[in-house]
Amino acid sequence: MDEKRKRILIIGGVAAGPKAAARARRCDPGAEITIVEEGSFLSYAGCGMPFYIGGMVEKHEELMATPAGVVRDVAFFRNVKDINVLTGTRAEAIDRKNKTVRVTNLATNETYDLPYDKLVLATGSKPVRPPIPGVDLAGVYTLGNLDEARAVRQAVEQVARRVVIIGGGLIGLELADVLGTKAEITIVEMMDHVLSTLLDPELSILVERVLRGKGVQLILGSRVERIEGDGNGAVARVVTTAGSFDADLVVVAAGVRPRVELAREAGLDLGETGAIKVNEYLQTSDPDIYAGGDCVENTHLISGRPVYTPMGSVANRHGRVIGDNVAGGRDTFPGVLGTAILKVFEMNIGRTGLSESEARRLGYNVQSFICPAPDRAHFYPGSKPIIIKLVADASTRKLLGAQILGPGDIGKRLDVAVAALSMGATVDQLASFDLAYAPPFSTALDPLTHAANCLRNKLDGRARSINPLEVKKRLAAGEDFVLLDVRTPAEFNEVRLPYPNVVFIPLGKLRERAKELPKDREIIVFCKVSLRGWEAQTILASLGFTNVSFFEGGIAAWPFELDTSPRQS
Amino acid sequence: MDEKRKRILIIGGVAAGPKAAARARRCDPGAEITIVEEGSFLSYAGCGMPFYIGGMVEKHEELMATPAGVVRDVAFFRNVKDINVLTGTRAEAIDRKNKTVRVTNLATNETYDLPYDKLVLATGSKPVRPPIPGVDLAGVYTLGNLDEARAVRQAVEQVARRVVIIGGGLIGLELADVLGTKAEITIVEMMDHVLSTLLDPELSILVERVLRGKGVQLILGSRVERIEGDGNGAVARVVTTAGSFDADLVVVAAGVRPRVELAREAGLDLGETGAIKVNEYLQTSDPDIYAGGDCVENTHLISGRPVYTPMGSVANRHGRVIGDNVAGGRDTFPGVLGTAILKVFEMNIGRTGLSESEARRLGYNVQSFICPAPDRAHFYPGSKPIIIKLVADASTRKLLGAQILGPGDIGKRLDVAVAALSMGATVDQLASFDLAYAPPFSTALDPLTHAANCLRNKLDGRARSINPLEVKKRLAAGEDFVLLDVRTPAEFNEVRLPYPNVVFIPLGKLRERAKELPKDREIIVFCKVSLRGWEAQTILASLGFTNVSFFEGGIAAWPFELDTSPRQS
Ligand SMILES: Cc1cc2nc3c(=O)[nH]c(=O)nc-3n(C[C@H](O)[C@H](O)[C@H](O)COP(=O)(O)OP(=O)(O)OC[C@H]3O[C@@H](n4cnc5c(N)ncnc54)[C@H](O)[C@@H]3O)c2cc1C
Ligand SMILES: Cc1cc2nc3c(=O)[nH]c(=O)nc-3n(C[C@H](O)[C@H](O)[C@H](O)COP(=O)(O)OP(=O)(O)OC[C@H]3O[C@@H](n4cnc5c(N)ncnc54)[C@H](O)[C@@H]3O)c2cc1C
Ligand SMILES: CC(C)(COP(=O)(O)OP(=O)(O)OC[C@H]1O[C@@H](n2cnc3c(N)ncnc32)[C@H](O)[C@@H]1OP(=O)(O)O)[C@@H](O)C(=O)NCCC(=O)NCCS
Ligand SMILES: CC(C)(COP(=O)(O)OP(=O)(O)OC[C@H]1O[C@@H](n2cnc3c(N)ncnc32)[C@H](O)[C@@H]1OP(=O)(O)O)[C@@H](O)C(=O)NCCC(=O)NCCS
Ligand SMILES: [Ca+2]
Ligand SMILES: [Ca+2]
Repeated sequence: MDEKRKRILIIGGVAAGPKAAARARRCDPGAEITIVEEGSFLSYAGCGMPFYIGGMVEKHEELMATPAGVVRDVAFFRNVKDINVLTGTRAEAIDRKNKTVRVTNLATNETYDLPYDKLVLATGSKPVRPPIPGVDLAGVYTLGNLDEARAVRQAVEQVARRVVIIGGGLIGLELADVLGTKAEITIVEMMDHVLSTLLDPELSILVERVLRGKGVQLILGSRVERIEGDGNGAVARVVTTAGSFDADLVVVAAGVRPRVELAREAGLDLGETGAIKVNEYLQTSDPDIYAGGDCVENTHLISGRPVYTPMGSVANRHGRVIGDNVAGGRDTFPGVLGTAILKVFEMNIGRTGLSESEARRLGYNVQSFICPAPDRAHFYPGSKPIIIKLVADASTRKLLGAQILGPGDIGKRLDVAVAALSMGATVDQLASFDLAYAPPFSTALDPLTHAANCLRNKLDGRARSINPLEVKKRLAAGEDFVLLDVRTPAEFNEVRLPYPNVVFIPLGKLRERAKELPKDREIIVFCKVSLRGWEAQTILASLGFTNVSFFEGGIAAWPFELDTSPRQS
Repeated sequence: MDEKRKRILIIGGVAAGPKAAARARRCDPGAEITIVEEGSFLSYAGCGMPFYIGGMVEKHEELMATPAGVVRDVAFFRNVKDINVLTGTRAEAIDRKNKTVRVTNLATNETYDLPYDKLVLATGSKPVRPPIPGVDLAGVYTLGNLDEARAVRQAVEQVARRVVIIGGGLIGLELADVLGTKAEITIVEMMDHVLSTLLDPELSILVERVLRGKGVQLILGSRVERIEGDGNGAVARVVTTAGSFDADLVVVAAGVRPRVELAREAGLDLGETGAIKVNEYLQTSDPDIYAGGDCVENTHLISGRPVYTPMGSVANRHGRVIGDNVAGGRDTFPGVLGTAILKVFEMNIGRTGLSESEARRLGYNVQSFICPAPDRAHFYPGSKPIIIKLVADASTRKLLGAQILGPGDIGKRLDVAVAALSMGATVDQLASFDLAYAPPFSTALDPLTHAANCLRNKLDGRARSINPLEVKKRLAAGEDFVLLDVRTPAEFNEVRLPYPNVVFIPLGKLRERAKELPKDREIIVFCKVSLRGWEAQTILASLGFTNVSFFEGGIAAWPFELDTSPRQS
């Protein structure tokens, strides 16, 4: 071994590790770069596993191929990148004093030391496997790596008619999506709602409606007590606090935990989330040891707090910064926004920054708005609805977060919100962005511009709007108010809110018929999206009604009962 | 007339005018609001006219309907908005001293004065009709309003087999798109390239390739000398400096001019672009007169210079600010980025900020990069390529502009660039955005992140890359260099650069076969997108080659000859 070459040793061969290695090589052609990976697969798209399981991606090799079709195996890393990869090799311990890592070749059981000048921990995460009886039965899977994904795909193709997914988070829902047409799906979720760490409840409920509409059985607010077998060691049913559900395949998608054993045993600092603590250069408490990807904790760019956000996108950005720095650079990783996006049947769902619940928990002076809008000119073929919820700090008017969902193009608005959050934009600045408009792409004022303007109206005290959860709570409490529907008769015939206090007056008649409304009762207006609700608020205010508000999101985002029975007005 | 009500008078009833009126009404329920419009149609989506002409939008009423299907006519503005609209009424002169506007009812020829407290000019723009012989023949159209759009649609349906479009800008290309399957299209463009005010030439050429591929005849760098008739007053052909082209329908799409007569005659300041000058509150030089939409000039947010950017999106944002301010508010309009987006057959095209040519003209220390990438995970069904060109200020590292095109999802990346530019982001900040990733939506590092990283590599002096135009210039000059293609054999067989100095060595063999390359000649590497070009640069540099660069965009963005003849390697 040539003693003058810098030795860069990397533990973990999926995303953060190979990215750090690849970047380090480009920045330092002279370094000796080695990746140690205990598994057999390298450099694969874990994020693609659901689509591989669902069959949209035919072969697992596609998940580890370049766009040009070259598989990233050991030979690829050797020939293209001049990177030495040891698969089937486990790192057992770090000797920080001597700067070596003890590794074991899992095939031969041979153990030896690898020296390093710079060490990179990219040990990733492991799925949580809750300690419930039966979790080790045949037919019970987690989805932490490609071997597991291949096993699940095989099980799906061979046996699965009834699949129980434990966990209603991002991965659980992606699985429900890809398996929805192949099997009967039940999702068991401990929290009261799916995606409860990503979305505020009124939006989670809209996702639940889509899932149920596709025949997915949702068992919410319930715990799995045990998994039972068929007597031959194969899974037969999942027993929960809300009953028992037959299953020939169970996937536990209950979150992941960072793999920090090596770091902990080497005496490196862990953060309060339990993941490895790193500074903005992605150095651990030992400056010669870097860490990135699913094994580290991040700083949230809005709250400034440590968060655990295990994402492939983040792992890649980490890897590049680390690659730079182990090669002598000084690049920084500023932090994350907790951005996430997924597709669940025809619904696209995304979020970034803080949800309203998170912002309240953190003590912000929160203001939020829910704004449905068409994703492109409504007259343009293919226009589809989306729902944007923006959360802002009423004191600074800064955007705190965005949640966006619907069948339309949410990805664009989400990433614009990411950019706005990254740069500390106020909602006023967001509203002024010169976003691109042509009918095939957007509306003259983009949905995000509308959402920002709506929130500005609220921050300025012009709009008095309330969240649908609030309306529902007041309905349930039997409070006395008028729910004023200002849509057109055609819209009214199609779908209605089924409550006795609903009064129907189309917006175009409101000025002339307002006298039919009581001045001494509270009026809460709505329409399809509550754009006309806002307009009606201003109309009624101008006519001397003093207790008028509208509820946000209208029918389009109403998460509760709807009456769609045929009706002739 | 109740003297205590504030009188808000608005001239122009399409986008900026009605938006100002609608917002003013919500902000000031007591005001008396009047719109004067000389035409008969109100509040319509001019931007939708191409799609109406192409038949994707069936009826012109759809362009002036709300998403709920209500047509925005005089009665709508009266009943819903309490706004008085006078159609068929022309504003003739402004009397600033007495605060009145002289108007003429075009049906009765009656002339009278309308008083105002606040006046809004939303007089918009008119298409340029160049003073060439024959421009007034039957069958020669412009596309400035809905009447004209209806006439063009009728002509298309009745006669058009051969359509000549004069002008290869945004509107000309949208027309070619919607008429491409219905007629033989010729576009005559004075400049050397289509979209020459929007894109840098190497990208315009890629658009031209798509147009030609769809059978559109492009006559570039040529002027129309005259339009000739068939003897019966109908158009027969367009005579240009590059020959004569038969036509039964001619559309002049040669840009628009702001309508500033009223403003000029009232002594209001015009700007250097010829459009009305306004401050950040959108006030003209008379503080009681506001102006917005296509009749005003804007401040470019990057250059700080006045620009004329007549867009429906801008008109709506203007209108809202004006509506606020005429109702007593103090909202501001910070400026524009010259954002534009359009669809031309299967190609989506967008730009924002400064192009490289503009930035150079303005004296910036420019650095740019052209980065093709798949719009979502390449293994995910439906993944499509896009090409991003970023332009930055090498001195400040700030992003100056973005041009993005391709069949894939360009709209998202464009709007993220808009947000970044609006907030003054550096390319380093852009590269750190926590953009949303899941395979159906993006790649682990978003194409925009890659593009930003590529530009950082160049700014940092790591990457030595050149523009394809530069390569072509040096090929044409007969310079001595090696064009090194590092793609796979399969890719090479599919398509090649047809130049004698091309050498083919796949990236995976480069380390072992580099000795075949000359060390004394310049080597310019490329691949499909030049990602492997960048990698090859670093490999060859590490092997002692001192004069190596790669050209940006690779085969995917190569705007010149390609050899696609079948080949067995
Ligand atoms: C089903 C699924 C869907 C997902 N979808 C998305 C998505 O849509 N978007 C997104 O951004 N992210 C998504 N993710 C997350 C993404 O896959 C991870 O964030 C990413 O894989 C993390 O990469 P990593 O390199 O940090 O860690 P890992 O992928 O966990 O890889 C770590 C590697 O290190 C190896 N290792 C650990 N310890 C040792 C040791 N001591 N010795 C040797 N080797 C060791 C492991 O064997 C493992 O191969 C998804 C994940 C899953 C499971
Ligand atoms: C074919 C086409 C496609 C387009 N596509 C896009 C696109 O994709 N995206 C985009 O953002 N923009 C697009 N635009 C531009 C967009 O349509 C305009 O920017 C927008 O219409 C401007 O609105 P405005 O209200 O300022 O002016 P205008 O639409 O020009 O309306 C001004 C109105 O004022 C009236 N008026 C003028 N003077 C007087 C007077 N003295 N008295 C009474 N009335 C008067 C006129 O009759 C006219 O109706 C497109 C335009 C066209 C023509
Ligand atoms: C692929 C992998 C090995 C990284 O290797 P890599 O060579 O850095 O590949 P990338 O595609 O990330 O980056 C390619 C390089 O070319 C550059 N590039 C991208 N497009 C380019 C283009 N059109 N022209 C020139 N350069 C380009 C990038 O900037 C990057 O260079 P840099 O980091 O030096 O700036 C690593 O990311 C990996 O293993 N990924 C698979 C697993 C994974 O990501 N899983 C999690 C998500 S599911
Ligand atoms: C339609 C038009 C008359 C404006 O009227 P408007 O009532 O302001 O309509 P908009 O849709 O622009 O805005 C609706 C209002 O509801 C708000 N809104 C939008 N979505 C909402 C929702 N889901 N819930 C509550 N409020 C909502 C908006 O913020 C806006 O209010 P504000 O300006 O007071 O903040 C005017 O824009 C016009 O004539 N447009 C057609 C022509 C055109 O735009 N052409 C150019 C492009 S091709
Ligand atoms: Ca995923
Ligand atoms: Ca258009």
